[in-house]
Order: sequence, then structure tokens, then C-alpha cells
Amino acid sequence: MEKARLQLALDTYDLPSALAPLQKAAPYLDVIEVGTILCLSEGMRAVKVIRSLFPEKTLLADVRIAEAGGLISKMAFEAGANWVSVVSGATLSTMESVAREAERHSGEVQVELFDGWTAKTARQWRDLGIRQVITHRSRDGEAKAELTWSERDFDDIRRLASMGFNVTVTGGITLRDIPLFAGVPVYIFIVGREICRAEHPDAVAKSFREAIQRLS
Amino acid sequence: MEKARLQLALDTYDLPSALAPLQKAAPYLDVIEVGTILCLSEGMRAVKVIRSLFPEKTLLADVRIAEAGGLISKMAFEAGANWVSVVSGATLSTMESVAREAERHSGEVQVELFDGWTAKTARQWRDLGIRQVITHRSRDGEAKAELTWSERDFDDIRRLASMGFNVTVTGGITLRDIPLFAGVPVYIFIVGREICRAEHPDAVAKSFREAIQRLS
Repeated sequence: MEKARLQLALDTYDLPSALAPLQKAAPYLDVIEVGTILCLSEGMRAVKVIRSLFPEKTLLADVRIAEAGGLISKMAFEAGANWVSVVSGATLSTMESVAREAERHSGEVQVELFDGWTAKTARQWRDLGIRQVITHRSRDGEAKAELTWSERDFDDIRRLASMGFNVTVTGGITLRDIPLFAGVPVYIFIVGREICRAEHPDAVAKSFREAIQRLS
Repeated sequence: MEKARLQLALDTYDLPSALAPLQKAAPYLDVIEVGTILCLSEGMRAVKVIRSLFPEKTLLADVRIAEAGGLISKMAFEAGANWVSVVSGATLSTMESVAREAERHSGEVQVELFDGWTAKTARQWRDLGIRQVITHRSRDGEAKAELTWSERDFDDIRRLASMGFNVTVTGGITLRDIPLFAGVPVYIFIVGREICRAEHPDAVAKSFREAIQRLS
């Protein structure tokens, strides 16, 4: 199994608060995510600034497109994003607009799976050339400690991977969670607050990277 | 039936392009919408600038919350929004976070109806104190001219109104469309490009306002 990647989600209310931990953690990251909150607080300026600082890194603009797919993805790709996100509830026509724009910019599309997606729809996304999906625990769910990673999640990941998707996992992932994913075909682990709020973001990012490398 | 209101959706790629038509059209508007595209391109700065220019107007930040409801709505309300939008696919827990934040800021929540919502869920939103819904034709759908306003749409609006919602309609509404809504309980008409791209945004906004006033 290919080694999983580490993605840092930046979900601060302003750009300076995101840049400090990012600058430290960057050497250990495969993907930098400009999170939805940061996109909405600072706009595409956040994507442009981070692209300028880290020209070689893969950059995801987590714009969570629900509609107006062509316009929003064009804006994000032109700001410097390599990948954009779309919510699973978007219509196939929206998915298609985003996939087309991604192709134009040699970018990729991540579909964020919210309740209600079906295997049938997922295959349609695949047919549009969409290669990535994200399964996650919602932040609101987390706050209530309603959800935890379980065999059911792992089965979902295996099923999506067998359909040909690169599967990203997110939602309050801690260092202790990583070994739970042994043998599960994860493409990317997204970590946010655990790194961003650490006293030493570089040390924590390094530990995550090492834990991921140890997975077999 | 109470007269419907006129809302201008600002969905430009940058703030200056939005301000020119807004400045002209403002006297005829009840609600100013900082659209999803403008929120993502300029961030909450767009909301702050427009709040500063028009302190008395009702302001919607069309942030289309899918998750992290508390954080995103707090950010939008603190920037000066009176209303925020949530997609219908968001979990009830997310809706609850947004409704709670709205109450704290004496704000309101609009749920944007995408495919898959049910009357049962809508009643749950209502129980959380959410009073507004938006029915729309998707921009991607419009581009393909797949959809038009029909009796089925009008029945949906009537059904939602009878459940106690204030119902907003959006999606490429033209001046000629307005009379079609006679007798339909519309709370707000959202108009975007028709006004923003007009040579005289003030004259067009005035015409929309008059057409709405003529509805019985």
C-alpha cells in the first residue's frame, strides 16, 4: 500500500494566525489546505499569499462548492490552488463544471462526503474524472463527541478506495488515532488544530509524519 | 398578502465591481446579499465594507454553511451580517449551532434548499427557530436552460409558506418573471445579474421594485 500523505488544514479567522504554524510545519507537509473558514474570512488572498510562500506545495482551497461550480473553482485555481472541494450534495451538473475547470488548470477535485451520498452518485463522479473523496466527522458532531472512528468508517474507506477513489480522512484526528488506520487505504490524513494550536507545530507535524510512515 | 421584498445578490469576483451597481441600486433594495462568490473572493472584508456603507440595510452573508456552523456564522455576524445562509444538506446539529449564533446576534438564518430536503427536516429547522428558506434554480442548471419557474415551484413555495417559512426565490429572475408569481406567497425576490450588469442599475432596480409592488 502506498504511504499516506499529511495535509494541514488552516482554519483560523485570519491569515497571520495561520501563517505562523504553517511556516514551522511546512517541511513535514504534503498538502496545505486553506480551510473553509480561512477562505471565507480572508478570501482568495489567503490562497494567493500561501501559494507565493510555498510555490512547490500542493494547495487545496476548501471552498466547499455547492453551486456555481465553474465560477468558484476558476477563481480558486487562478488564485493558485491545485485542488478544490465540492460538497457531495452538489448536482452532477455542478460537479461537471468543476471537473471541467479542474482539467483546464491541471487541478483536481475533492468531493466532501456529507450524509446522503450513494455509491451510484459516487460512480458518476468517478466517470467525470473526479479522483478524490473526503470522509469526515463533522466539527459540530465532534463538539458533541457523538462520533468516533469505527469499523464502519474503515469499511466506507475501503469501499470508496475499491471504486478507484483516493480517500482523505478528516475530523479531529489525533496522533493516537493514526495507528487505528493500519491496513486501511487512506490517501491523506488531514490534521488541523492538533498542529496549529501546538506550542511547537514543527515537532507535532513531524510526529504525525512519522506515525503515518510507520503505518503498513 | 404582505408585499414581497427585493434583494440584490452581489456575486462579482471583487468588491469594487460590486460597489458601483450597489451604490446606484441601493435606494430600491430591501436586502443586500454578499454572494458566495464575493464572500470567497474578498472574505468578510466585503461584508464589513458594505455594512459600513449601508448601516441601515438588511445584509445577508451568503456563506452557504455546510459544517462548522457556529464558527462561520459567528464570523459573518461579527462582520456585520444580519442573516446567514446554510445549505439544506447540513446536519441538524450544524443548523442548531447556526440558529444559536443567530439568536445571540439578533440575526436570522436562511436555509438554501438543494435536492434531497424533506418536509420532515424542514419542520425540524422550523422548531430550531429558523424562519427563512430559499428555493432556487441552480446557476449550473440555468446555464443549460434545464429549468424554468413552474407550477411545481409555486406549489413548493405555498407548501413552505404554509409550514410557517418566509420563502425567498432566486435563480436568474427577470422583470418578465415577476408577474408569474401573482398570488404566490414570496417573501423576497433575489435579483443579481439583471441589476448588476445593467447600464443603469438604479433604473432596473426601480423597475423590479415597482413590478413587485404591483403583485397582488
